[in-house]
Amino acid sequence: MPTIALISPDFDLRPQAPRLRAALPGHRIAVWPEDDVSDAEIALAWEPPQDVLHAMPNLRLLQGVAAGVDNLIDRTRPGPWKICRVVDPQQPASMEQYVLWAVLHFHRHFDVALANQARQAWRREPPKRTADFRIGVMGMGEIGLKVAEGLARRGYPVSGWSRTLKRAEGVRTFDESGYADFLGQLDVLVCLLPLTEQTRGILDRRTFDALPSGSALVHVGRGDHLVPGDLIDALQRGHLRGAVLDVFPKEPLPEGHPLWSTPGVVVTPHMATMADQDAVLEQALVNIRIAFAGSDDFINQVDPARGY
Amino acid sequence: MPTIALISPDFDLRPQAPRLRAALPGHRIAVWPEDDVSDAEIALAWEPPQDVLHAMPNLRLLQGVAAGVDNLIDRTRPGPWKICRVVDPQQPASMEQYVLWAVLHFHRHFDVALANQARQAWRREPPKRTADFRIGVMGMGEIGLKVAEGLARRGYPVSGWSRTLKRAEGVRTFDESGYADFLGQLDVLVCLLPLTEQTRGILDRRTFDALPSGSALVHVGRGDHLVPGDLIDALQRGHLRGAVLDVFPKEPLPEGHPLWSTPGVVVTPHMATMADQDAVLEQALVNIRIAFAGSDDFINQVDPARGY
Repeated sequence: MPTIALISPDFDLRPQAPRLRAALPGHRIAVWPEDDVSDAEIALAWEPPQDVLHAMPNLRLLQGVAAGVDNLIDRTRPGPWKICRVVDPQQPASMEQYVLWAVLHFHRHFDVALANQARQAWRREPPKRTADFRIGVMGMGEIGLKVAEGLARRGYPVSGWSRTLKRAEGVRTFDESGYADFLGQLDVLVCLLPLTEQTRGILDRRTFDALPSGSALVHVGRGDHLVPGDLIDALQRGHLRGAVLDVFPKEPLPEGHPLWSTPGVVVTPHMATMADQDAVLEQALVNIRIAFAGSDDFINQVDPARGY
Repeated sequence: MPTIALISPDFDLRPQAPRLRAALPGHRIAVWPEDDVSDAEIALAWEPPQDVLHAMPNLRLLQGVAAGVDNLIDRTRPGPWKICRVVDPQQPASMEQYVLWAVLHFHRHFDVALANQARQAWRREPPKRTADFRIGVMGMGEIGLKVAEGLARRGYPVSGWSRTLKRAEGVRTFDESGYADFLGQLDVLVCLLPLTEQTRGILDRRTFDALPSGSALVHVGRGDHLVPGDLIDALQRGHLRGAVLDVFPKEPLPEGHPLWSTPGVVVTPHMATMADQDAVLEQALVNIRIAFAGSDDFINQVDPARGY
């Protein structure tokens, strides 16, 4: 019987099992680690252990359950399977809302108000005009572009930075060579980069030092972009004003990690976008049917070498 | 010499004195309480003691320095002077930003994330779809209308409530008689009412009980709309999820007041809109020139009986 595996150590994929069974009668839906998944041709996965994948000789399709795919890729031991992600039509709008909250949090001094509330202090301080509050978006893919253009439409001066120069409505764009110029003029830096070997650890001391004193970080890219110690240091010496972080090198962020309690840091549990479970099922079913029809012309396929 | 008084016990109007002097040579600018203001024909004021006003026999124009005017009006002892407010063209946009932050705060579970961060807990919980997160705006004046329409454009289902039925693009509107229906279907209630004898104390137990369990309050109207004890009670018995409050019956909110430390309450220091000091000066100068030209056909005049 054709087998589909669900593999995720942390994120609960179990609710998808009965839905897949209902949609695919005549297929076996095996949930790792309880069930034997070794004969599966298809795996729906989030952070699957690469050993488990390599012990599946028939695996042809590794189907992610979110927009990000670095959780699926092991560059040192690539498998012969194809890798696909989920493109949730609501995801850009959901990311835009998260980033907008974080931008307003700093622009409109809600961060200051919350800190003052903790010591029962009433302090009014007029904010910068919207037209003077400069936002930089790193990563101008589908979502970065939408976020940058949305903030520009709200009246913020927005810059965008990407490896190759992009064009965006109302946004001043920079390419790789303009990194220092891009950073040097910002009130808030928003990281929406994909994770690649080039971007791993990019949110480090060098980047923070290139930002103006008093600027803030909104990190909604991938956990491994961030060097937590460098951020904590930049906050503690007062160079950065604050940070809103949604992703972390290790998730869940471990109890006792200093980021939980560093003043100025807002920790959210990777919630900026949460792929709609209907969209996950729908797109997985399309690719499952393509696979069992003998094709490998999957939708939303990614290039493991580029990493997106 | 024609005299203009600056009268404000709490809010610092002093920075306007040199600017008025520069703009109005040949006039005396008197700052209460240091200077004698008894002969002034015009007062620029924020929460002026009514005794001081009544001791000014020549007073013809009481010019506010913000959108709100209840701080200027004493209904029991109305004076013969005209009362004007400042209409800051940035004020609706500024209010929209504040309300948007507060709506996203609840819709996207930032309130939950901040509470979880305090105990280093990582919990993911998918939010309601934007199209299912219902917002109600009380008060459909110039600013309420703009806020309601802006939220509707972002995809939220928005209702508006006002004394007389208003029309707004994409907004379901209710009048006085529809109060219970309006409240009974909301996730977030936004108060943007003017303060009148009819609206004083309107945010009380009766209103909170008419909201669905688990809904939240965003209060950016006037301090005296709110009955703090009723709000604290509704939060403590778990009926309301949270409240973002920008205005209070007494401002600054006194140290030790229970609202500072009630779980679920965000206190901000009357910062939703802060009238641009250039706009204040510009509109005050227009009215000062009208007054000294012998007219009383002032701009942005308010009706003290209606209260707005």
